[in-house]
Amino acid sequence: MAVEHDARRGRLAAMIRARGIATALVTDLVNVRYLTGFTGSNGAVGVAADGTAVLVTDGRYQDQARAEAPDVQIEVDRDLLGTLSARLGGATRVGVETHALSVDEHERLVSALDGVEVASLRRAVEELRVVKDEVELDALRVACRVSTEALAGLLEGPLVGRTERAVARDLEWRMYEAGAEAIAFDTIVASGPNSAIPHHDPTERVLETGDLLKIDFGARVDGYHADCTRTVVLGRADAWQREIHDAVREAQALGVEGCREGRQTDEVDADVRGSLADAGWLEHFTTGLGHGVGLRIHEDPFLSSPSPARLDRRTALTVEPGIYVPGRGGVRIEDTLVVTDGQPELLTVATTELLELA
Amino acid sequence: MAVEHDARRGRLAAMIRARGIATALVTDLVNVRYLTGFTGSNGAVGVAADGTAVLVTDGRYQDQARAEAPDVQIEVDRDLLGTLSARLGGATRVGVETHALSVDEHERLVSALDGVEVASLRRAVEELRVVKDEVELDALRVACRVSTEALAGLLEGPLVGRTERAVARDLEWRMYEAGAEAIAFDTIVASGPNSAIPHHDPTERVLETGDLLKIDFGARVDGYHADCTRTVVLGRADAWQREIHDAVREAQALGVEGCREGRQTDEVDADVRGSLADAGWLEHFTTGLGHGVGLRIHEDPFLSSPSPARLDRRTALTVEPGIYVPGRGGVRIEDTLVVTDGQPELLTVATTELLELA
Repeated sequence: MAVEHDARRGRLAAMIRARGIATALVTDLVNVRYLTGFTGSNGAVGVAADGTAVLVTDGRYQDQARAEAPDVQIEVDRDLLGTLSARLGGATRVGVETHALSVDEHERLVSALDGVEVASLRRAVEELRVVKDEVELDALRVACRVSTEALAGLLEGPLVGRTERAVARDLEWRMYEAGAEAIAFDTIVASGPNSAIPHHDPTERVLETGDLLKIDFGARVDGYHADCTRTVVLGRADAWQREIHDAVREAQALGVEGCREGRQTDEVDADVRGSLADAGWLEHFTTGLGHGVGLRIHEDPFLSSPSPARLDRRTALTVEPGIYVPGRGGVRIEDTLVVTDGQPELLTVATTELLELA
Repeated sequence: MAVEHDARRGRLAAMIRARGIATALVTDLVNVRYLTGFTGSNGAVGVAADGTAVLVTDGRYQDQARAEAPDVQIEVDRDLLGTLSARLGGATRVGVETHALSVDEHERLVSALDGVEVASLRRAVEELRVVKDEVELDALRVACRVSTEALAGLLEGPLVGRTERAVARDLEWRMYEAGAEAIAFDTIVASGPNSAIPHHDPTERVLETGDLLKIDFGARVDGYHADCTRTVVLGRADAWQREIHDAVREAQALGVEGCREGRQTDEVDADVRGSLADAGWLEHFTTGLGHGVGLRIHEDPFLSSPSPARLDRRTALTVEPGIYVPGRGGVRIEDTLVVTDGQPELLTVATTELLELA
C-alpha cells in the first residue's frame, strides 16, 4: 500500500484554509516526513492552501529528496527558510510551527517575509498525525511484532549472571535480527533496586536470583516506534513482588480496556489511578499513564495531560502504569494499542502474567 | 578527574556579567548537561551572574538530578520555565537561548516574567563548549579508541557476501563490546554505487568484490562522540578507485595538518578544496569539510561555515573531505582530532592507506 502523502497535505490545506492561512511553512522534520516522505536531517516544506507543496533541502539530500518525495517540487538550497520565503512572495498570511521553530529562526523568517503576516500553525500537523492511516498502522504492527518476538527469545534465558547492559544489547540485537531498522529509544533494563527507577540506563549490575527485572524497549520500522514494558522476577516471586505486579497488571488491563473511541483521556487516567488507589499503591505511581506513538516515540495525545482529549479511532497509544518503591524495586507493564470503537487492538502481544525466570 | 561543572558555570557567569545579564536561563539539554552534569531528558538551569545555579526537572528525574548535579540547588516541578521564572523574581535582565527556545516557550516565559527584560544569550554555552577541558578530551580519546578498535576487528573480515545492514550491526556490536555506552550516530555502510551517496542508510545490498566500501561510524563514551570514516576496496582496486582515494587522502592529510591554533577555518577549507581542485575532483566534493565534536556529534565550529572562526587549542574537530561520483562510487576519509599549537593530536588512529580486503 502506497503512502498517500498528497492526501495528508490535502488535509493540512483544508485546515489552513479554515484558519485563513495562505501557506503552511512546516519545519519540524518529523512533520516534513509525514507530509512528504522525505527522511533527511535537513529540510522544510511549504504547503499552500490549494495543496501544492515545495520541499527545500541541501545538496547532500538532493537525490534522496527526489526519490522519497517524487510528487512535490524540490528546491536545493542551504538556506531553507530564505528559499521558502522567496517562494512565498505572493502569500498574505503564512503559518509557522511556533512550538518547534526557534526564536531566532522565527525572527529571520519574519524579516525575510517583509510585509507578510506570520501567524502560528499551532500543532496542526501533530493533530493530523493523531489518527493513523492504514500504512502507519501496518508499520506499527510490524514494529510491535518485531519487538515482542525479540523479547520472547531473550526471556528464554539465561538471565541470572549477566549484566543489565549485556541484556539490553542482546535484546537490541534480537530486534535487529527480527527486522528492526533501528532501536526506537534507549533500552531500559533495570534489575533489583534499579527497577524502582522509572527511567534507568542499563549498568554493569549483574542480575541476581530474587531480582525484579523491568525491561522497556521497542523496535522502529519504517519510521514507526514500538513501545513495550514487561517486568519479570528472577527465581521465585516474593509476596510483595507479586502484590505490586498484581496491582499494576490489574490497573494496566483496565487502562487498555478503557482506550475506546469517544472516551476522554482523563477518564482513562482516573480509572487506572483509582485501581492503584484501591490497591493502596497510588503514591508510588509517579509518571504519566501513556502517550501517543507513531513517527515519534512520544506524541499526542498524552493520557495524563492537564488538557484532556477525546480518543479517536485509529489512534495509537501506550498504557504504562507502574509502582516504584525507592530502594526496593518496581514494576511497570506497558502495551502499545490502537483505539477502535470496541475492544482496542493490542499490538504488543506478550503475556502480562508474572513470569518467574532463571 | 572530576568534572568541574562549577568552573564552567563560573565562565558562563563571567560572560553574562560582561553582557549586563542578571541570569542565564539555559534550556538546551546538552548545555544543561555541560553546566550541571544532569543527563535526564527534561530539565532547565538558571545560572545567576554570581555563579549560583538552580536546576529544575520533573519527578521522574528527582533522584538522578541530585546524584548527577550534587552541587546545584534542585527544584522538582513539571513546569520548568514557570518554576525558574518564579525563582528569577529579582532579576532585571534574563538571557535565554533564542537559537534553541521555541517561539511558544519564549512567549510563555516573557509573560511569566512580567516586567523583566528577556534578552538573548546567543550561543554563549556553545562558545564555551568549543574549547574542551581535560575530562572532555579524555572521553573523546576513549570514544575514538573504542571506535577504531571495533573497525580493526570488522576489517579482518569476511566482508564480501554480507549485507550493508549486517556489517553496520556487526560494527556497532563491536563498539559496544569495546566499551561504547551508545552508538554516536546512525552508522553508514555504503557499498558499490551506494558509496557515492554522502549520507546513506545501510540496505540489504550484498557486498561484492570490486566494491568501494565506505564506513562512517563512531562510539559514544560519557556523552562524547567519536566520528571516523574509512573507505576500503573489496578485491583489487581499479585505477579510478585508487585515483579518487589518493586525491581524498592527500586533501584530508592537508586538512588535518592545517588544524592548528590560530588558523582560520576558511583557510583550512580553502587548502583542502585547492588540493581537490588540483586533482581535478573538486566538483564532486559536495559537503562541508568538518565540524566540532563533543557532547553533540555536530557542534561549533564548522570548517566550511560562511562565518569563519579562529581555531583555538583544545578544540575537537573532524576533517572529512570526500569525492562522490553519482552512480559509480565515492570515497570519504574522516578523522577526529584535537587542535594544539603544533601537530594536531589525532584521536582516530587507523591507517588511511587504501586497504584491499575480502
